Amino acid sequence: MHTFQELRAQFEAYLNDYNFPESPQALYDACRHILQLGGKRVRPVLSLMAQDLFREIDLNGKQAALAVELFHNFTLVHDDIMDKADIRRGKPTVHTKFSMPTAILSGDVLNIYTYELLNNITHENQKKVVSLFNKTAIEVCEGQQMDMDFEEIANVPEGDYLEMITLKTSVLLACSLGIGALLGGANDEDVQHLYEFGKDVGIAFQLKDDYLDSFGDESKTGKKQGGDIMANKKTIFYCYITDIATDTQMKQIQDLQASSKGDKVEQTLALYRTMGADDYVSKLKEEYSQKAFLALDKVSVSAEKKAHLRELAEMLLVREK
Amino acid sequence: MHTFQELRAQFEAYLNDYNFPESPQALYDACRHILQLGGKRVRPVLSLMAQDLFREIDLNGKQAALAVELFHNFTLVHDDIMDKADIRRGKPTVHTKFSMPTAILSGDVLNIYTYELLNNITHENQKKVVSLFNKTAIEVCEGQQMDMDFEEIANVPEGDYLEMITLKTSVLLACSLGIGALLGGANDEDVQHLYEFGKDVGIAFQLKDDYLDSFGDESKTGKKQGGDIMANKKTIFYCYITDIATDTQMKQIQDLQASSKGDKVEQTLALYRTMGADDYVSKLKEEYSQKAFLALDKVSVSAEKKAHLRELAEMLLVREK
Repeated sequence: MHTFQELRAQFEAYLNDYNFPESPQALYDACRHILQLGGKRVRPVLSLMAQDLFREIDLNGKQAALAVELFHNFTLVHDDIMDKADIRRGKPTVHTKFSMPTAILSGDVLNIYTYELLNNITHENQKKVVSLFNKTAIEVCEGQQMDMDFEEIANVPEGDYLEMITLKTSVLLACSLGIGALLGGANDEDVQHLYEFGKDVGIAFQLKDDYLDSFGDESKTGKKQGGDIMANKKTIFYCYITDIATDTQMKQIQDLQASSKGDKVEQTLALYRTMGADDYVSKLKEEYSQKAFLALDKVSVSAEKKAHLRELAEMLLVREK
Repeated sequence: MHTFQELRAQFEAYLNDYNFPESPQALYDACRHILQLGGKRVRPVLSLMAQDLFREIDLNGKQAALAVELFHNFTLVHDDIMDKADIRRGKPTVHTKFSMPTAILSGDVLNIYTYELLNNITHENQKKVVSLFNKTAIEVCEGQQMDMDFEEIANVPEGDYLEMITLKTSVLLACSLGIGALLGGANDEDVQHLYEFGKDVGIAFQLKDDYLDSFGDESKTGKKQGGDIMANKKTIFYCYITDIATDTQMKQIQDLQASSKGDKVEQTLALYRTMGADDYVSKLKEEYSQKAFLALDKVSVSAEKKAHLRELAEMLLVREK
C-alpha cells in the first residue's frame, strides 16, 4: 500500500516520461503547458490507489491514470475557453498564451491521446474500462452544458444543482477509482462501491467548496470570503434559498443580486443564516461524506489497506483550503 | 456488392435510427443540427464499401461507419469555430445557431460518442480498428494546426502543403476504408492497399479542388472562379509558384497578393500559366489519381467487386463540382 504522496511522485515521474511529438509545435506546446501547470493529480492518484488495493500497480494502471489526467486537462482547456478564464494556477490559460483555435485543438488532441492510452491497456477488463470511461466523459460534457445553462435561468432547483456538480465533477473522481479497481481485477461490487465512494466524496467536496466560499475563514482558505456572492454564482446556497423563499424573501434575494453595495456579502450571509442555509449545506455535506465512507467500508479489503484512501478523503473533505 | 447510392441510403437509415439523449437539450440539439446538414457521407460509405469487399456488411461495420461520420462532424463543428465560418451547406454553423461554448462541447461529445461506437465493436480486429482510428484522429488535429500555422507564414513549401492536406483530409478517407477492411477480415496487405487508395484519392481530390477554383468552368463548378486567389489562400498553386519564383516573380506575387484591383484573378491566373503551375498541378493530381488506382488494383479481390469503389473514386476525381 502506498500513500497519496508516494503515488503522486510515481505519477509525476511517469507523466514526465510521457512525450508528445515535437511538431506541430504550437499544438503540442499547448498540451505540455496545461499539463505542466501542476495540480494535486487527485484523479490519477485515486486510480492508482484503487488498483493498489487489489494488486501491485502495473503499466496498465499507470496508463489508465495518465489517461484520466489527460482527459481532465482537456476539459480544463476547453472549460477555460468557455468561461473566458485568463489565468489558471497563476499562469496564462492555453487560449490566452497560445490562441483560441490552438486551445480547442490541443484539447481535442488530448482527448484522443486519452483514448490511445486506454486502447493500449492489455487487461481483460479493458473494454469495461473504456465503457465506464465513455459514460463518464459524456456525463462530464453534459454537466458542463448544465452549468452553462444555469447561468441563463433564474431559479435552479437544488436537485438540478446537485446533478450538475455530480456530472461535472464527481463522476470523474468516481470513474478514476472504478477504472483502477477494474485493472486491479476487483469484482463488480467492489468496483461499484469504490465508484460510489468517489462520487460522494466529489459531491461533498464541491459542497465544502461552496460552504467555505461563504463561511470559510479567510486566513485558512486563502481566498476572499463571498467571492461566489459577489459574482452572483449559482451555488448550493443560492439554489437552496430560492427553492424555499417566500415572496418577500425572493424580493430580498433579487435586490441583493442586483446590489453592488459594500455590504452585499454581509447582507447575503445574514439572509443565508436567517433561512438556515448554512446549517442545511453543512449537514448536506456531512451526509455525502458519511455516504462516501460507508461505501468505502463495503469494499472487501482490509481496513488497513483502505487507510490511505480514507486519509485522502478526509484531507479533501476536512481541510479548509 | 452495393453501389454508393445504395450504401448511402442504408447509412442514412442507420443514422436516423441513432438517437442522442434529449437532455441537456442545447448540447444534443447541436449534435443533431450538424448531422442533419447532410453531405455526401463519403467517409462512412467508403467504410461500408470496404467491408462489403470481404464479407456482408454487419452491425460492426455500421457502427464503425457511424463512428467515422460522427468524428468527421465533430471536426467540422470545431473547424467552423476556428475558421469563424457562419454558414455551412446554406445553414448556420453550430456556434452561430447555438453558441461558441455549446459548439465546443457538442464537438467534444461527438468525439466521445465516436469512441463509444468503436468500443461496441465485437470483431477480433477491434483494437486494431481503434489504433488506426487514433493515429488518424491525431493526424487530423495536426493537419488542422498546420493549416492554421500556414496562415501566419509567407512561404509554405509544396511538400509541407501536401503533408497538410494529407493529414487534414486524406487520412480520414484512408482510415474509413482501412477500418471497413479490418472489419471485413481483410489481411494486412489489403488493409494497407485500401488505406493507400483512400489517401491518394483524398490528395488528388484536394488538388482537383484547388485546380477547379482557379481554372474550373463556373457553369460546371457552380462557384465563382478565383475565390482562393481573392482570399489569398495558400493553395497548391501558391506554394508551387513561391517555391520556384525568381526575385522578380516573387515581387509580382507579392504585388498581386496586396492588390484589390478588378484584374487580380486574371493577372494571377496569367502568372500561374506563365510559370507552368496549371500544367504542374494538373499532372500532380493525375499522378495521385494513378497511384490511387494502382493501390486499388492490388487489393486481392476481383475487379468486379471493386467496380463500385473505382466508380466512386472516378466520380470524386473527374466530375467538375
